[in-house]
Amino acid sequence: MKKEHEYSVIGKRIPRIDGRVKVTGEAKYAADYALPGMLWCKILRSPFAHARIKHIDTSRAAKLPGVKAVITGKDFYGWRWGWMPKTRDEAPLADDKVRYLAEAVAAVAAVDEDTAEEATELIQVEYEELPGVFDPEETMKEGAPKVYDHIPNNLSWEFHMDFGDVEKAFRESDLVREDRFETGRVITGYLEPPAAVALWDSSGITIWAAKQSPYFVYRHLAACFNLPLNKIRIIQPFIGGGFGGTKNDSLAGDFCACLMSRMTRKPVKFVYSMEEVLMTCRRRHNMIILNKMGMKKDGTITGMHSRVIADGGGHTAIGPLTMYLTGFMSTLPYKLPNFKHDAFRVFTNNPIGAAMRGHGVTHTRFAAEIQMEMMAEELGLDPVEVRLKNAVTAPHTTINKVTVDSCGLTEGLQTLRDRPEWRSKDNKKSTHDPISHGVGISGTAYLSGARQRGHQSCAAVIRLCEDGTIDYLTGATDCGQGSDTVLVQIIAEELGLQVEDIDIKRVDTALTPCDAGSYGSRVTVLAGEAAQKAAQDVKRQLAEIAARNWKVSPEEIAFRNNRVYVEGSPDLAMSFEQMAKVASYSGSGAVILGRGYSQYGIEELDFDRGEGNGGTAYSFTSQLSEVDVDTETGFVKCTNMVIAHDCGKPLSPVNVEAQNQGAAVQGLGQAMYEVFKMDKGKTLNPNLVDYKMPLSMDTPKIEIIDIITDDPHGPYGAKEASEGAIVSTPPSIISAIHDATGIWFKEQPVTPEKIVMALKDKQMNKK
Amino acid sequence: MKKEHEYSVIGKRIPRIDGRVKVTGEAKYAADYALPGMLWCKILRSPFAHARIKHIDTSRAAKLPGVKAVITGKDFYGWRWGWMPKTRDEAPLADDKVRYLAEAVAAVAAVDEDTAEEATELIQVEYEELPGVFDPEETMKEGAPKVYDHIPNNLSWEFHMDFGDVEKAFRESDLVREDRFETGRVITGYLEPPAAVALWDSSGITIWAAKQSPYFVYRHLAACFNLPLNKIRIIQPFIGGGFGGTKNDSLAGDFCACLMSRMTRKPVKFVYSMEEVLMTCRRRHNMIILNKMGMKKDGTITGMHSRVIADGGGHTAIGPLTMYLTGFMSTLPYKLPNFKHDAFRVFTNNPIGAAMRGHGVTHTRFAAEIQMEMMAEELGLDPVEVRLKNAVTAPHTTINKVTVDSCGLTEGLQTLRDRPEWRSKDNKKSTHDPISHGVGISGTAYLSGARQRGHQSCAAVIRLCEDGTIDYLTGATDCGQGSDTVLVQIIAEELGLQVEDIDIKRVDTALTPCDAGSYGSRVTVLAGEAAQKAAQDVKRQLAEIAARNWKVSPEEIAFRNNRVYVEGSPDLAMSFEQMAKVASYSGSGAVILGRGYSQYGIEELDFDRGEGNGGTAYSFTSQLSEVDVDTETGFVKCTNMVIAHDCGKPLSPVNVEAQNQGAAVQGLGQAMYEVFKMDKGKTLNPNLVDYKMPLSMDTPKIEIIDIITDDPHGPYGAKEASEGAIVSTPPSIISAIHDATGIWFKEQPVTPEKIVMALKDKQMNKK
Repeated sequence: MKKEHEYSVIGKRIPRIDGRVKVTGEAKYAADYALPGMLWCKILRSPFAHARIKHIDTSRAAKLPGVKAVITGKDFYGWRWGWMPKTRDEAPLADDKVRYLAEAVAAVAAVDEDTAEEATELIQVEYEELPGVFDPEETMKEGAPKVYDHIPNNLSWEFHMDFGDVEKAFRESDLVREDRFETGRVITGYLEPPAAVALWDSSGITIWAAKQSPYFVYRHLAACFNLPLNKIRIIQPFIGGGFGGTKNDSLAGDFCACLMSRMTRKPVKFVYSMEEVLMTCRRRHNMIILNKMGMKKDGTITGMHSRVIADGGGHTAIGPLTMYLTGFMSTLPYKLPNFKHDAFRVFTNNPIGAAMRGHGVTHTRFAAEIQMEMMAEELGLDPVEVRLKNAVTAPHTTINKVTVDSCGLTEGLQTLRDRPEWRSKDNKKSTHDPISHGVGISGTAYLSGARQRGHQSCAAVIRLCEDGTIDYLTGATDCGQGSDTVLVQIIAEELGLQVEDIDIKRVDTALTPCDAGSYGSRVTVLAGEAAQKAAQDVKRQLAEIAARNWKVSPEEIAFRNNRVYVEGSPDLAMSFEQMAKVASYSGSGAVILGRGYSQYGIEELDFDRGEGNGGTAYSFTSQLSEVDVDTETGFVKCTNMVIAHDCGKPLSPVNVEAQNQGAAVQGLGQAMYEVFKMDKGKTLNPNLVDYKMPLSMDTPKIEIIDIITDDPHGPYGAKEASEGAIVSTPPSIISAIHDATGIWFKEQPVTPEKIVMALKDKQMNKK
Repeated sequence: MKKEHEYSVIGKRIPRIDGRVKVTGEAKYAADYALPGMLWCKILRSPFAHARIKHIDTSRAAKLPGVKAVITGKDFYGWRWGWMPKTRDEAPLADDKVRYLAEAVAAVAAVDEDTAEEATELIQVEYEELPGVFDPEETMKEGAPKVYDHIPNNLSWEFHMDFGDVEKAFRESDLVREDRFETGRVITGYLEPPAAVALWDSSGITIWAAKQSPYFVYRHLAACFNLPLNKIRIIQPFIGGGFGGTKNDSLAGDFCACLMSRMTRKPVKFVYSMEEVLMTCRRRHNMIILNKMGMKKDGTITGMHSRVIADGGGHTAIGPLTMYLTGFMSTLPYKLPNFKHDAFRVFTNNPIGAAMRGHGVTHTRFAAEIQMEMMAEELGLDPVEVRLKNAVTAPHTTINKVTVDSCGLTEGLQTLRDRPEWRSKDNKKSTHDPISHGVGISGTAYLSGARQRGHQSCAAVIRLCEDGTIDYLTGATDCGQGSDTVLVQIIAEELGLQVEDIDIKRVDTALTPCDAGSYGSRVTVLAGEAAQKAAQDVKRQLAEIAARNWKVSPEEIAFRNNRVYVEGSPDLAMSFEQMAKVASYSGSGAVILGRGYSQYGIEELDFDRGEGNGGTAYSFTSQLSEVDVDTETGFVKCTNMVIAHDCGKPLSPVNVEAQNQGAAVQGLGQAMYEVFKMDKGKTLNPNLVDYKMPLSMDTPKIEIIDIITDDPHGPYGAKEASEGAIVSTPPSIISAIHDATGIWFKEQPVTPEKIVMALKDKQMNKK
């Protein structure tokens, strides 16, 4: 590992490379695209949460002037997609039943948006309404309405882990607690709604689409329309936020726009309205977690048994991976010698539950963190000392064979414990009634570089231009997280260049190398590894030419500060630009293309048992949050957060800071504000006035402390810095609220109503 | 070398892969592109052939409603471009002087084409007209007006070769002749005029432009605007013909559209009118060739001294290469022990002379072929036997160190000699007066895989999709010659796939690997070599995985008929699709990218002396042409052509046939019809009614006979099949006209007027 001062670009606080085009408004998003002759696509959605489609009459819509195509589910011939071959249950347009309210049932392409909208209203659908099921516990019961006729108990997916002997552990514990926790229905909250322009001509499908993992959609479109993959081309505009879920998957609009482009031979565009997003798009699963934990008197955790029920809504989507993540990561960040996990994903007639930042982990970690606190309190122990006692230290192998080679948890917790906010917390109490102050600390872990079986590697191609500037081709998407900046830094560092010398190209699935996608905190570590290797490949080719020139061995050639030179021989040097010219113009001239692959075997990964490494490494986040609770109104103001995050090494400190802050704000929303209000499958607050995301005035100062652990797997020691803090935020806030009120809240979000009610109950009980 | 029957795709008569989109009209050419907010660019051109620009007033144009930008030469700050650093003499817009009539002097960008056109008429240019010089011999004389003040005798470039001792050779000859030949001012005649849409935003310049060698323009734009190369992106539409010259270079329109896009922040488009093309675009140099040849009584050529004067027009452009080609190739296809060459390119106030199919070679070969015929006649020898006596056979090294490793000339000439058309030619004579029948045979050579110093290599990238289909990225342009089909065939053959499995992507200079360009008959041999190696690289990666699977060595793995198998073990086999899936989905999945470079050192090439191999190989063309001459009207009808072309091995026989036929028709135009009529630098016939290109009814049956020589350098034994027949056609036709009339014509084109006049003269002299 290089020493800090030896890096030129890595670890420096440089601005984001896409900052300028974004703030000037020049950056084009999918909705900004327009092609000559383009049509607009609008989707008709079901007014029922559960109904059989008996008949659709599109004739009136088709006759409306300006309408060029009308399609229904039948036009997709029963095709279904899903995350795994055995879970393919979602149709582009519902053809037999609708399983959630506002599911897509028909689509129109017309000369403009208004005409398309008007035409959808002319489509007559005859439904047979069916009794629905909306509660994840009710849906499992005998006699509940069935979402899929052939699936018993509406069980979408189950996942079980069993390591050690939890029953024995509980018997040997001094304290065993069992609690029921609930996490809410929340959504990613990106600014940019899903949008695309699709064109299907004889070269196949080209689609300019807002996708954080374009190669998923590439596969879905090929499968849906029975086209070879080299006839599908997804061109990536700038992306206005992803966070998993919707932009990590295909949508009704994608399939409908493509099909109607084929029918009309015109480009077809769709842009979802924010109401469509909030009514119909994939959400974080709301979950019930029944958590049972055993503890010795000294705070040692002996075992844990978690049972999870996740509301999957009408389709499976990425649910199996969510269920895996609820359990697989539970053996971190605390030593857990015995662990049992039973996760059930159930179908209901609610919108679809899927991935979101902190995927799967935020739910069970919230339960375990709060339960640990409760048990520490019961045992009269300091909750931070309990964490420190149980904290994993590297190297460590969990009971389910997850190997931790770098871990900054202890350092993070100690850093927070020593902060004045924590040390003086009892002094601050009840200073200005009715405001009650509270402080909470949490410690969590997240996976970095998510790994599964399948086409999971990353690759990079570098074109060396003859003036020494670089074109960099990656399939990895920057959906707003700043990864383009990090990847460019890696290439600049390797080649001894500046960030300005590297131009990263927009993803184009036909031209850029295949990439698994921007999810699971993969990009910096895996696409970064590929970028680093591609740059090293360029260096190798250039070093050979330089070595021939200078009659030394290629190993002696160094690249630094835009120069190429022989290590230790100051006279044998030239600018990188000159080096590129020498390579390009000597003899018949070399074309230099660098190529790099991420390499990480996953032979030891057992997805079904939850065993082995689901990440290349693991990040650790310790968080302190402060709140002021108004005990009269229940209103909570989060006044301060300090996040000590171990991302191995921050390659782009500005980005690491921003990612942690962004995740913390999203976690704040989830802990305190955000939730979809539902009535029999109907979302009652599908707008950003009633669905309350934190605003800038709700956001406290968020201090980020980098805990450096130099992970051996990631490039330059890096691990993720995007998902950790969304896991650590809710438990730290809810611990702080407990500190302020004496009440343990086990349901997210903790709203003023709940606080006021709980304080009243507490008052009543005291009396 | 494989046997014929061992190939699956190579050598098969398959249709062109771009045929369908071209005949249905779906293929988009540069002029078809439109972007939102796009402006139109129009260029104001000089009414004088030679004038000093004293002042330009753009104020009235700028005030016209709808006009968004007006620029003049001053906006380019004296920047010049040219083929070599020392010949940079052309400005995007003339800023000091105009040197040919209709040279660009100002440009306008406006909301539509008509407004832009109107605005150009409002620009007031004050010129000081200067005396012009229009004749290439006059321009060299003392006292002639100077095109460039600092250049003596208007000499643009000179090139000299001197090998052996020609004076001694002439002394030892039985016959020495000296003749003056002239070739005409002709133009490439593509259907698609130059056009582009340019967009300059903060990512740099993106230009959708009709260019046969986009990387030339890429360098010019970077240099003109001082941008790094990775900020220049040329995206290739379909190209409607190239043939060298204009589409192989940059144009006023390219620079103006880019600059005005930067000024207006809008996309800017231009489409040249056919009048602009024919008035101002690069033409084939018209040349005067003073040829002196010595011959023994038995027909053995002893030596040759050629002196060339080429009319370069107002700028140098690619002229130095033209001059090199007039001499370097003269030592083929006949053994020439002594050779001297003195070539002078001169500036005049005519439009610019540049490259065109058969570049440089058609002129001097025409002279030498006709002179050989004249000498054979004088010595009473059969002209075909004289050719056979002198014909090079492989292996052969010329006096200027050009090495021939495959040569089908003798076989070609013998084939034609044995044809009934030749054997019975005297029988056909004077059968139906006043029609006189004639037959002529020529034998010529052309270079294949043009090589120069510089960034000349080709590269290819192959993306293996996980369903076994292929994305193929090349920087080589199919400008109509069918090279995309050939390159795809090569990849299909190597991987054992079908042509349909391979998708070739349009060139995009930011994403596809750098390529020298589509000129000098390079694509099949050099881009083909890169394609073959990239495919082999994919096979190597897959073979390693297959070998691990089957526990054999990678060398035992074969790829054929869409299958991968162990040679000799029929059970160890899977489909190529399955193989791709195994690679993509085993463990964390491989991303397979193939990479290939063309490799050919040119250490031995001396451009200044005309020594060494300017091609990777050399093609040989023997041609028989039949004509019927109406001795009353001078009208000539070419009734038959038989072309025996040695392209090594035809990879795509349909293409080889079409290329030879197309070249022959273009050669027919040059020999008999096409010429620009000039009056003091003004082109009098800048339209396709008055500039007479052969029509289908002028075109005879053209039979192509492939002479197979399996060249050791080209992929699968291939050499060029695009430029050879434009060299062989004019001498064979003009020999045939001589056969019919008894008159030797030494000036192209041989028009009815010239024939009638010559026949009258002959008649008079007889009397």
